[in-house]
Formats: sequence, C-alpha cells, structure tokens
Amino acid sequence: MKIHPDDITTFNQADENQRAEDLDFLTRRLTSSGHDPDKILDRLSDLQIAIPSWALGSGGTRFGRFPIGGQPRNLDEKIEDVGLLHQLSQMAGNISLHIPWDIPDDTERIKALAAEYHLTFDAMNSNTFQDQPDQKLSYKFGSLSHTDPSVRKQAVEHNKQVIDYGKSLGSKSMTVWLADGSNHPGQTNLSAALKRTGDSLAEIYAHMPADWSLFIEYKPFEPYFYSTVIPDWGTSYLLASETGERAYSLVDLGHHLPNTNIEQIVATLISRGKLGGFHFNDSKYADDDITVGSIKPYQLFLIFMEIIQGTATSPHNPDIAYMIDASHNLKDPLLDLLESLDAIGLAFLKASIIDFEALSDAQNRNDISRSSAILQDAFHTDVRPLLREYRVRKGGVHDPIRFYAEHNIREQLIRNRGKNTLATGL
Amino acid sequence: MKIHPDDITTFNQADENQRAEDLDFLTRRLTSSGHDPDKILDRLSDLQIAIPSWALGSGGTRFGRFPIGGQPRNLDEKIEDVGLLHQLSQMAGNISLHIPWDIPDDTERIKALAAEYHLTFDAMNSNTFQDQPDQKLSYKFGSLSHTDPSVRKQAVEHNKQVIDYGKSLGSKSMTVWLADGSNHPGQTNLSAALKRTGDSLAEIYAHMPADWSLFIEYKPFEPYFYSTVIPDWGTSYLLASETGERAYSLVDLGHHLPNTNIEQIVATLISRGKLGGFHFNDSKYADDDITVGSIKPYQLFLIFMEIIQGTATSPHNPDIAYMIDASHNLKDPLLDLLESLDAIGLAFLKASIIDFEALSDAQNRNDISRSSAILQDAFHTDVRPLLREYRVRKGGVHDPIRFYAEHNIREQLIRNRGKNTLATGL
Amino acid sequence: MKIHPDDITTFNQADENQRAEDLDFLTRRLTSSGHDPDKILDRLSDLQIAIPSWALGSGGTRFGRFPIGGQPRNLDEKIEDVGLLHQLSQMAGNISLHIPWDIPDDTERIKALAAEYHLTFDAMNSNTFQDQPDQKLSYKFGSLSHTDPSVRKQAVEHNKQVIDYGKSLGSKSMTVWLADGSNHPGQTNLSAALKRTGDSLAEIYAHMPADWSLFIEYKPFEPYFYSTVIPDWGTSYLLASETGERAYSLVDLGHHLPNTNIEQIVATLISRGKLGGFHFNDSKYADDDITVGSIKPYQLFLIFMEIIQGTATSPHNPDIAYMIDASHNLKDPLLDLLESLDAIGLAFLKASIIDFEALSDAQNRNDISRSSAILQDAFHTDVRPLLREYRVRKGGVHDPIRFYAEHNIREQLIRNRGKNTLATGL
Amino acid sequence: MKIHPDDITTFNQADENQRAEDLDFLTRRLTSSGHDPDKILDRLSDLQIAIPSWALGSGGTRFGRFPIGGQPRNLDEKIEDVGLLHQLSQMAGNISLHIPWDIPDDTERIKALAAEYHLTFDAMNSNTFQDQPDQKLSYKFGSLSHTDPSVRKQAVEHNKQVIDYGKSLGSKSMTVWLADGSNHPGQTNLSAALKRTGDSLAEIYAHMPADWSLFIEYKPFEPYFYSTVIPDWGTSYLLASETGERAYSLVDLGHHLPNTNIEQIVATLISRGKLGGFHFNDSKYADDDITVGSIKPYQLFLIFMEIIQGTATSPHNPDIAYMIDASHNLKDPLLDLLESLDAIGLAFLKASIIDFEALSDAQNRNDISRSSAILQDAFHTDVRPLLREYRVRKGGVHDPIRFYAEHNIREQLIRNRGKNTLATGL
Repeated sequence: MKIHPDDITTFNQADENQRAEDLDFLTRRLTSSGHDPDKILDRLSDLQIAIPSWALGSGGTRFGRFPIGGQPRNLDEKIEDVGLLHQLSQMAGNISLHIPWDIPDDTERIKALAAEYHLTFDAMNSNTFQDQPDQKLSYKFGSLSHTDPSVRKQAVEHNKQVIDYGKSLGSKSMTVWLADGSNHPGQTNLSAALKRTGDSLAEIYAHMPADWSLFIEYKPFEPYFYSTVIPDWGTSYLLASETGERAYSLVDLGHHLPNTNIEQIVATLISRGKLGGFHFNDSKYADDDITVGSIKPYQLFLIFMEIIQGTATSPHNPDIAYMIDASHNLKDPLLDLLESLDAIGLAFLKASIIDFEALSDAQNRNDISRSSAILQDAFHTDVRPLLREYRVRKGGVHDPIRFYAEHNIREQLIRNRGKNTLATGL
Repeated sequence: MKIHPDDITTFNQADENQRAEDLDFLTRRLTSSGHDPDKILDRLSDLQIAIPSWALGSGGTRFGRFPIGGQPRNLDEKIEDVGLLHQLSQMAGNISLHIPWDIPDDTERIKALAAEYHLTFDAMNSNTFQDQPDQKLSYKFGSLSHTDPSVRKQAVEHNKQVIDYGKSLGSKSMTVWLADGSNHPGQTNLSAALKRTGDSLAEIYAHMPADWSLFIEYKPFEPYFYSTVIPDWGTSYLLASETGERAYSLVDLGHHLPNTNIEQIVATLISRGKLGGFHFNDSKYADDDITVGSIKPYQLFLIFMEIIQGTATSPHNPDIAYMIDASHNLKDPLLDLLESLDAIGLAFLKASIIDFEALSDAQNRNDISRSSAILQDAFHTDVRPLLREYRVRKGGVHDPIRFYAEHNIREQLIRNRGKNTLATGL
Repeated sequence: MKIHPDDITTFNQADENQRAEDLDFLTRRLTSSGHDPDKILDRLSDLQIAIPSWALGSGGTRFGRFPIGGQPRNLDEKIEDVGLLHQLSQMAGNISLHIPWDIPDDTERIKALAAEYHLTFDAMNSNTFQDQPDQKLSYKFGSLSHTDPSVRKQAVEHNKQVIDYGKSLGSKSMTVWLADGSNHPGQTNLSAALKRTGDSLAEIYAHMPADWSLFIEYKPFEPYFYSTVIPDWGTSYLLASETGERAYSLVDLGHHLPNTNIEQIVATLISRGKLGGFHFNDSKYADDDITVGSIKPYQLFLIFMEIIQGTATSPHNPDIAYMIDASHNLKDPLLDLLESLDAIGLAFLKASIIDFEALSDAQNRNDISRSSAILQDAFHTDVRPLLREYRVRKGGVHDPIRFYAEHNIREQLIRNRGKNTLATGL
Repeated sequence: MKIHPDDITTFNQADENQRAEDLDFLTRRLTSSGHDPDKILDRLSDLQIAIPSWALGSGGTRFGRFPIGGQPRNLDEKIEDVGLLHQLSQMAGNISLHIPWDIPDDTERIKALAAEYHLTFDAMNSNTFQDQPDQKLSYKFGSLSHTDPSVRKQAVEHNKQVIDYGKSLGSKSMTVWLADGSNHPGQTNLSAALKRTGDSLAEIYAHMPADWSLFIEYKPFEPYFYSTVIPDWGTSYLLASETGERAYSLVDLGHHLPNTNIEQIVATLISRGKLGGFHFNDSKYADDDITVGSIKPYQLFLIFMEIIQGTATSPHNPDIAYMIDASHNLKDPLLDLLESLDAIGLAFLKASIIDFEALSDAQNRNDISRSSAILQDAFHTDVRPLLREYRVRKGGVHDPIRFYAEHNIREQLIRNRGKNTLATGL
C-alpha cells in the first residue's frame, strides 16, 4: 500500500507550527553547544534499517500464536509492507530476504518492484534450522556442523543457492545464523563440531562474489539448550578471522547471556574491523525479540555511542548492516516495526549529540563524574523534534505511529488481504 | 504396549549375579553406616512420578520441530505409553491429564484402562494459554487475569470443566499454570491483573470438591517477556495463602531466574505447609525443559534433601505431587522419560542415605567442613544397585533404558501407529 | 560546610534567562497535555531521599580501596556533608544512621545539629554482619538466625539498642538488613534458620514504639554465597506478614537475581500495603552499588511509575522511606550522591507526567501500542528544567553537580579535614 | 608442619581391609569395562594442583572478615602449609607465588625450602589492582590500560620484576589477572583501553625468557562494575593471539556470566592450542570463590571430560597449569583446600573412566540417549577407592580431611603461630 502524498502533506501540516516551535527550541540548544543539526540529519539519512521479509506477520512462541489479520500473503505484499514502512519513516530503505520462505519467482520483477518502493536488498538469510517438506536429509542433528558429510553438503549447497538468489537481486552480503547445537552434555564433540562448521563456512565464503561480505551470527542457546556451535562473539570472531577478510561477526542484541556488556563487544569488534551487522530487538530475559528500545533504551544509546565513536576512529571497519529482528507476538507487526524504528532513530540522535571531544578529554583526565554528566546530558535531551523534521524533509510523516493508527491501515490491509492470512516466517 | 513378564524375567536374569554382587557390596556399606536398605526402598515405592499426557510425543521450539514416529494418536495410546514406562521402571504410576488436548470420551472406560496399567490420575491441567479452534473469546491478552470479565468467565468455566473431568477420573487435584502476562512495560496494570487473578482462582477453588487441592504454578517469563502474572514463588505463595487452605504452590524446576536457590524455596514452602507439587526437568539457560538431572544433578539431590528433611520436620505439608514436565525435542520421548525417572530415583536414593542426624549435629556446631563431607559422602555413593533392585522386586526391569533399546520398542510403536503420527501437546 | 546564600544566588542568576526559556517551553508542553507543573513540584518536594551516614566516604571492594581525601571524620561532619547535599539539591532532607559506626555521643546535641541543616533522622540501621572489636560472641556463623541462643540474644539486644538511639533522635523506623546465610549446601538447616530469624524479628518488633515501622531487607547473596536467610521479596514479605502490622519489606535495587522485574515486586508489595522502603543504587551484574540511574534509567522510571500508580490506588500502603545506598569506589562520594539525586528526581518527574488516565484506558482496551507510546512520550520528555526550577524555588542551586565542581568543594574539605581521613563505613 | 611417616602409616592401616575390599570391587568393575586402573592413577599423578600463596589464610568480603587462628605469618610458613597439603593429598606439588604479598627474601633459600617439601614453583602472579604503601602512582583508574603512560610503565615494570623473581625460583610462567575496568558508561574509551592493554602485555611478554608462558586471565566484573578490560575468553584469546605464540588464555571457573557453558570454552581454547591454565573454585552467583565442586560437581566433571578429550586430539595445546583460587571466608583454609583437592581428584577420575570410544561412536551416530548414558555411567561410579589408593601408594593418607581433623592440625598451628596471625592476601 502506498500512501498518497496528499495524505502525507495533510497529516504533516496539522501541527506544523508546534513542530516548528519545538524544532526551533532544540536547534538553538544544539547549535549553542556546537552541533550542526543538518549534519546530524545527513548522518541519520545513512542509517537505513533493513526489514526482514519474515517479520511482517505475527510471531509466536512454542506455546501458541495469536495471528493478526491482513498479513502479507507473498513476497510482493511483503515488499509492499516494507515500502509502506519506509515511505512513512524514511528509515527502512532495505529489505532482507529469507530463503526458502521468500524465494523470488522472478528476480528481475522483484527487483523492479522493490525499486518502485525505493528499497534495495540487504543481507540474504539462509535457513538450516528447520526441515522443509521436500528436503532430502534432516537437520535434526545439525546442518553445517553435522557429523554426516552429506548433510553438511546439502546445507552448504542451500547457502550457495541463497547467495545466487542474492546476486540477482543486487544484495551484497550473506548472514548465516547457524542454529546447530546440542541439548545434552556429550551429545556432540564440541571441538569437532566447531571444526566442521569452519570447513562449511569456508565453502560458502568461497562461493561469494568478490564484493560480498559474510556475516556470522552467534547465539548462546535456543533452539538448543546445552550448547550451540557459535555461542558467543568470541567464537564468531574466531570463525570470521579464520574464514576470510570479508567474513564478519553479526551482533543480535537478544543473543547474549544475562548481564553481558554488549556495547563493549561492539567496541572490540569495530576495533578489529570485524563488526559486520546488527540485528536489533530488545529483551529482558532471553531472546525475547520484543520492540527495540522497549526495555533498555540506555543500552541502545550506549551501543550507538560505541558505533559512532568506533567507526570514527577505526575506519577499517566496513559499513555496518542494520536490521530489525523482532517477533511481533502481540502487537501489530507494522506498528511494532515503526516503534522500533523510532527507538533506533532516537538512540542514534542522542548518541550523535554526545560531546565526544569533551568526553575524550574527561576520559583522559579520568574525570569520571564529568564523563557521566556528558552522557547523561545527551541522553536526557529530547531529540524527537529532529527525528520528526528528518522524516518530513525526506517526504515521510512526522509521526508514523499516529499516522498508521489514524489511517486505519491495518483495517485496509485486512480488507485487501483477508482476516486469516498467514505470512511465512516464524 | 505391555511387556510380557517372561521378557522381563529373561532380561533381569541375564546379569543377575553381577547385580547381586553389586547390591551386596552396597548393602554392606549402607548397613554399616546405620541405614536399612529395605526401608529406603519402601520410601522409594511411595515416590511415584506422574507422566503428563502431553509429554509422550516430540516437543519443539518456536524455530521448528523434528517429530519422531510412533507417537500416540489418542488418549488410549498415551495411557498405554505411560503404562509401559511404569511397567519397566515401577516409578511412573500416575498420569496427569491435560484438557482440552486429552479429553476423555468415556471417563469410566478410560479409568478402567488406566487401572489395567496400574495407573491412577494425578493432578488435572487446564489450558488458557492457547486459543482452541472453537473458542468464543481469545486469550491473546490474558485469561484468568483478562481485563474483560467475559474472558475471565470463559477461562474460569474451562477450569471448572477440567475439575469435573478430574472428578470422574478419580483425580484429587488441579494444577493451574497461568501463562498470562505482558510483553511491554505499561501493557497491563500489574496489581490490577494480580487482583483479577486472585478473584478467578477463588472461583476455581470454590468449585473443587472438599478433598481436592489446587496447585498454583509460577514462571518468570515465556510465553510473555516483560511480566507474568505469577512470576515467582512469592506471588504463588501469596495467592495460595489468600485463596484457601488447600491451595498450594507448585515448583517447576525450569521456572526460575538465573542462579535461583531452588532448594531453599522448597524448604521455605514446606515449612509453611504450602508446597503442593513439582514439575521436574532440567535447564541450563531458561525453561529449557531438558532431561531431569542432565545438567544439575547435584541441585536435584539437594532438592530431595530438603524434601526429606522438611517433610520429616514439618508434617503439616501435604503429600507432594511429583510430575516430569520436559520437552523431548531430540530424544525419543519414552527414552527421555526413562532417563528422567532414573535421575529422580538416584537423586532420591542419594538424599535418603544422608546421615541426617550427624548433619544436624554438625549444623548445630557450625562445623561446616563436616556438613559438607556428610553431603559429599552421600552424593558420591553409587546407589544404582538399589534402584535396580527396587525395580526387579516390584516386577520391572533393572535397566529400563537398555531394555527399551534392546527390544526395539520405538520400532514396534512405529509399526503399530505409523511414522507420521503426531501426539497432541506442545 | 554551609554554602553562603549569596553564592547560591550568584550561581543561579548566571543563566537565569536560559533556564526561564527552557522552563517556559516545558511548561507550555506540559500544560497543553493537562499537567499542572506546580502540583508536580509539590509532590517532588515530598520525595526526600535519606542519605546514609556510611555513604559519605569512599567505598571499596574485597580487592582494595582507593580513598579520597576530606572524608568526614565523625558524625558531626557527616551531618555537615548531608546538610550540604540537601542545601544544594533540596532533595536530601533525611539522614539514616548506622550503629555502631555512628553512635551519637549526645543525641540532643546531634538532633539540634541536624535541625540546623534542616535534616531529620530516617530509618535506623543495625549491623550484625561484622564483629566489632569489643564484641563478646562472633557473628561468623550468623546473628539473628544463629544456632546458639546466646548469639541471637546478643544480636537482638544490639537491634534494641539501635531502636533506643533512634527514639531519642526522632527516627520512626528501623531497617534490618540481615546478612546471615551460608556458603555451602548443608551448612545450615534452611527452614530452622528461617524460624529462628522470625523469632528474633518478633523480639525486635516488640521493642519498637507503637508509631515505629520495621523494614525487612532481602538479598540473594553476598556476603554469603550459597544461601541467605532472607533471599527474596517473598521471604521478606512472609516474615513481615508474620511479624506484625507495622513490619514491611524494603527493596534495595541491587539485591535481585539477574533479570528480575523489580517494578512488579514494587507493585505487588504496594498492593498488599507492605512496601516500607527503598535503597536506591544501580547495577549491571550483582550488588554493584553504583550511581543511581547510571545503567538502567528506564527501570528507575518504571519503578516510579508503579509507586505513583500504586500509592494512588492502594492508599493503605504507608509512606515509603527512600534512601540512596551506593558505594563510591571511584567517584567523589558527594558528587556521586548528587548524581544519584539528579537521576531520582528526573525519573520521578518523568513518571509524574505519564498520562495515567490514557494509560489506564489503553490497558483496559488492550491497546498495547498505545500504552507503549504513552510511556515513551513521558520518558523522552526533557524534564530537567522542572528539576532545576524546583531547586531554585526551594533555595538550592539549579545544577548542584556543576556548583560542587566550580566551587572546589572537595578541595575545601581536604583543606579542612585532611587528605588521609577515613569515614567509618564499608 | 611435616607429618611423621609413622602417623601416616598408622592412619592408613586403620581401615586397610575395608579399603582393599572397596578397591577390589571398583577395580573389577573398571577392568571388566576395559579400563586399566594403574594407568588412570599414573595420569592422576600428573595432575598436580598449584596452591596460591595467598590462599592459606582466611578470606573475606567487602562486608567483613572472620579470621581463623594459626595463619602463616610469612612465606616460609606458607610453603610449610602447602607442603602439608601435598604430603597428605599427594596432589598439591606446586606453589604459585604472588608479588608483592610474598616476595622471597632469598630465592635460593626459598627454592631449597620448597624442594624439601617436594614443591616446585608454578605460575607467578602480579598485582596491579591495589595500591601498595610505597607506590608512586595510583592504580585507581587502571594499570596496564591506564591513560597515563607513566602509570602503565610502572605497572609493566612491576610485572617484569615478578618475572625476574620467578626466574630465580624456577617458575616457567606468568599469570596476569588485569583487574582494570570502569564503573560507569563513558568512564573509559573501551577500545583505546584495549589497545593500551595489548601494548603493555607485549612489553611483559618480551621480558619473559624463551621457555616461559604468559597466561591472560579474564573476568566480566568485580572489582569494576560496568566494564573490565578483559571481560571474556574472546578478549583473552584475542590478546593472547596478538601477543605471541606463548601467550595463552587462563580460565577461572568463577569469572563468567550466569549460565555460561564453560566446558565449551575449554574445548574451543584447546582446539586452538590456547588454553594455558585454570583457576579452580565454585560459585552459584558470581565470583563466589567457594570450595571446588561444592555447587556444580557435574560441570567440573564435564570440564575434565573436555580436557582429557581435547588434549588427546589437539596435542599442540601446552600442558595446562592448574591452580585452586578460592577464598576461605568461613572454613579452615587448609581443610577447604583439601576438600577442593578431593573434588578435583574425583572429577578427574570420573572423567577418566568415560568410555570415549563408545562416546565418539554414539556421537557420530547421533545416538543422544546413548551418549547421555555413557556420561551418566561414568559420573555415577564411586571412584573414591581409586583416589584413596593413589594417595596411599604415593605416601599420603587415604582421607586427608579426616586425618587433618583427627590430628588437630589447626590447633597445633595456633599453638605454633598464635591466634591472631594474619596471612597476606585478600
């Protein structure tokens, strides 16, 4: 669904004066402390967040699911949904495809369709954690790490095929989330499984075009509950280093043990030029996959601080691929994604107005009350006027969440697509 | 499937001499330290573990499932499977029913069938965490705690119906696992939700016959990821106290935050006469639901220490209802349950041979090296000969896991039931 | 040290215009959404945070300490320091005494001295987790829960004495943090220890004047590492309920297992009228005792949301006693406390501007995107102008942290007290 | 204190027959399943556990300490104590020195003294987490990672000096536990601190003799509570790889976030030839530093399984340096160490009798019930007779804990050294 530009204009005009006043207030504050709001907005413009093709329908848990109506029935409708998110927010200019859930029937047509919505294709995603109906060998006991070479070969071939799809869509990277693991001590030989995984990754890497990147995700548990083959950033980094120059770690915010200092992992990976991408979500307990910024907004701010600071001082890290990877169990998926985009935009903006020079000076003098104060000052600043301005300038709406509700978009989707559609995905 | 007594005899006779020797060795050791092995076996005989009707098929995660063949297709076959477990292990004399997954068509017939397998019906289980196809109102936003009184009424009525089924089957208790909760701060008014839950539980309690008990389970998260209505033992205890004399807390080993001292919760609840039941499983990260004793066998031993000690000194706690509540994602469900029964039996036996008198004396003198040594001595003792002896004496087999494998029972079940059957459950 | 009113005036006047502009902007925003800023400031005025007498010097860990100069050498100087914090922030009008670290030599004189600084005496604190040089029996193996009745008696007598000191100082409450616990399974009989604890608390309770309250703190571990006698809110609630009407739970933010939903505990305790007090600090891993709001500012906001909401709807909960309980290992203790007071003030103000009516409405309709948006709106608002206004109106300075630094207060303290003073405390 | 050989003989003879019977029973069991008990004992003989010079006195927490009498007053007495532990257990043939707590006045004399007790010097330990009285620059804000090059230089020089002491004592390795970190977000530039650390380690490494190894320890928190410079195995591995061939990671069992799969870290490090050493202890919550095996004996068994399996298949990992690093807050330190040695011996023996061939076969066939059964079989075997036999054969006593108690060794130490001695250390 495309929103008519007139509707956008009408919506934006409604409280134009108030917004102008707010922006003026903020701009004066920022300018007086040495910031250039226009430059900040330019950088925000580069922060495009990919939406995964599997996140446009309702999610669920092993205990059940409560599907919403109007879910996209095919890849075309998924692109349409991402297009809508991008049109409103101007922050979601990429789509990340999952194979085999969203195999494009005709890559040229799909590419053209995406272009119509101003979307490009971000990292491709393979799936060897489920058995597909027509699959020859089972992944029950692993895929890239399986003891049986023929299962490994099948899984490697699948990954190669995903790369091939990506090539024709213009994607430039491949994300491997390898769910392989074990449920009980002794089930697998841990170091042998790691060795086999490295070998399989090397084959996938070799199949990639020379301008592609490989992102290696890590996760400590779920769907396996004793060990996973790539449990932590250390293992991911190890494999990335051994696999090749264009192999990188990918950080999913929900894939850490309790109390992990994620922002430090971010800093370390960037310092070694090995941070490839992010999967954004939020969590209180485990891989909860809830709305970005809904539990730990300060952590998100600190992560962006490390990104901004790290990429400024370690220029050999590649451009980072950002994606939202949440599960919309209760909320309307599109609304939930809009909330997440808001949270990401605000965290980025708050981190952007940190006085990094003063911070660096305080750090060098070990003036730790001062460094705290600098962070707090940025975090407590209300940067929403800037995010609204960005969207309006780019052609979007200043408040996508309100627009979505007021225009009854879900009702329209249900009318168009039906009440009981189910999107492929989890 | 019933095993022919001759097969049992043949199996047991095969290494009778070795077993006799092992038993003799252990018996001498135990006797010399003041234990009476026969009395211990009598107490083991009272430790019957209920098998839930939903645990006889393959489990899964939100990411997928890998079903095994030969799963029971109906309640009759589930009873048959529990019967087999009990015949082999002599430790699984109860079945715990879940409604609506396993509604008995004819309670008298089902009761008789269970009796044939020497099984009785333990606690009944309701389900308000999923929507059933024919259900009028959705539980998406809660059931017993829902803001809408008509949803609460529907959920209460369902629970009453479960009690009614239980009455006709001879069950004497009802377990409420209330999955209600929220995914985001602000989604629910936490104390209002707690109030509504208490009111609903009171209605369910009032419907129970006078000789029934109500077990209130707690769980910190999953399927909801910000809050659950009954997150911890404290809330469960609060509700049990306020609901009535025959309302108790139920402890599921996987339903705790990291590092929780579960055995202390057990001790505290018993001291207040409020420990109603257990759901056994093991876990490393969250509610992993893996084989009992496969990760933390020492914790299981300590739990039984508290049970034995607590029930001896706080005689006002009711008999505890024990159940295995695991999810068999990779292992053969029946084999997995046999492993869990083994682990429970061994932990119980090891706890039984603690020298409680010496322990109490060491505790009173604060001789903490001595109290450690007493526990270690019991835990390091190899009590397997006693467990084997128990089973053989009662008509079971000394090593159910080996018997199951050697008799190709899964293959027989597949032959009888088919390769693609799916048991109702998670 | 008292700051001369002229210095305050001078400091506040420096950026008066800017502040007026900021306040004006915020006031218009708040007023337009139905808030009355003056009423909010009135309520902030009631939120006085006690400063504990042991938190005015440098803290440390078991690995070492790095003391700062100018620490208060006696109770008089501690009162002086709290007086300074209060004069600047207008939020620290109470002092919480610890016995035996800060035994008042002459309670009348001390009371008068405190009054000079506009301070009153909040909850008294006892100490049975250390052995004092002159102590007859050791607390190595426990105090209120000790197996030996004479040790229990000594510990109870100490608590009674603390109450007596408090009476003469005008305090109205007593906090018991009972560190008793065990380091190894089997070291203590857990339920017997709980029983003895309850008996000891009953004796302490009986000694309290009729208008006093008893606050029972809980903590899962440290200084003991297997069990503590009061590990969680459930046990604290249990003991408070059994001890008497004026016995309450006390929540220290650092005393929880990983991932605990603390705000839900707050809601539950208030709903039962049993939340007595708070110890504020922040933590990432354990009882880290770092600056309030420095790690999880959103959690602090949610806690204040529950407090404001809960006390409005459950009027039978008593007034809550607030205290900061942090350890200043690296930062200047006074600066650290000022940072914490800032964080508390901001969290309280943000929670105060939640649109509770709209929230309640959204909750009743299960409009969970709306309820998220309501919370986010309050949290993202920059309420600092209001906090600054409050302080100036009450006679304090708008930015205590900057004032403290610019006036070289630590240097003055060092000049007055010396470089190597050590405050009693941890 | 040296025990007279006659006392040992007398003690061992007392229940010689019973022990012979037990050993005979176990030997028959092991032999019948293909094990050679003598070979196992040979391997146990290689498993010498270093005792750190700082662990022979009472430990404590930041809340207090309860010292025991008879603590060693100097390095000579510490060597004497380790000698006693070794004489009794035959498992503690190494001592690990800490500088500056235990600076040897005369290295030749100290070396000779150690030799008298059959002790050699294991890894040396430096200390830059405390300020020493005579120290020029403070480590309050870091040492090897400090922003100020002169502090880093001081810390590097100290480490070089420790190496020099070690050279003259015959040690062959150096352990760096770098406590540097930060207490608040923003306090340090995380990647700059990591860079400085790497540079400092390189200088230390360059100072080591060519046959020395450098062990780099990691720890997520404490004494700092927001970040540490080397928080996890990944960072330690990164630094070890970058520092040099003879730089390795060191695993302290208490230095992990909740739920970490430590045995997998062990497997991964060995597979890359980078596991240098272990610090043994046990913990339930954080770095609790309690008796080895007292909380998670099964985890200890799994760790030894990975060690035995890993070193057999990855022969390029160096010999691993084992040390006990516990804090004896309540127990008699020597008794506590004897308990830990017992736990290590038993875990090693249980892991040694795993049927690795059958396990490997089950793993290759993904027979996960079988692999579980193989582990359980080894773990449930009572291997104590073998540990006792080992000690008696080597000249020690079969039950050091009982011997220690029955011979009133602590009382003798108090008599010799006094009641109020304090050993240097934490």
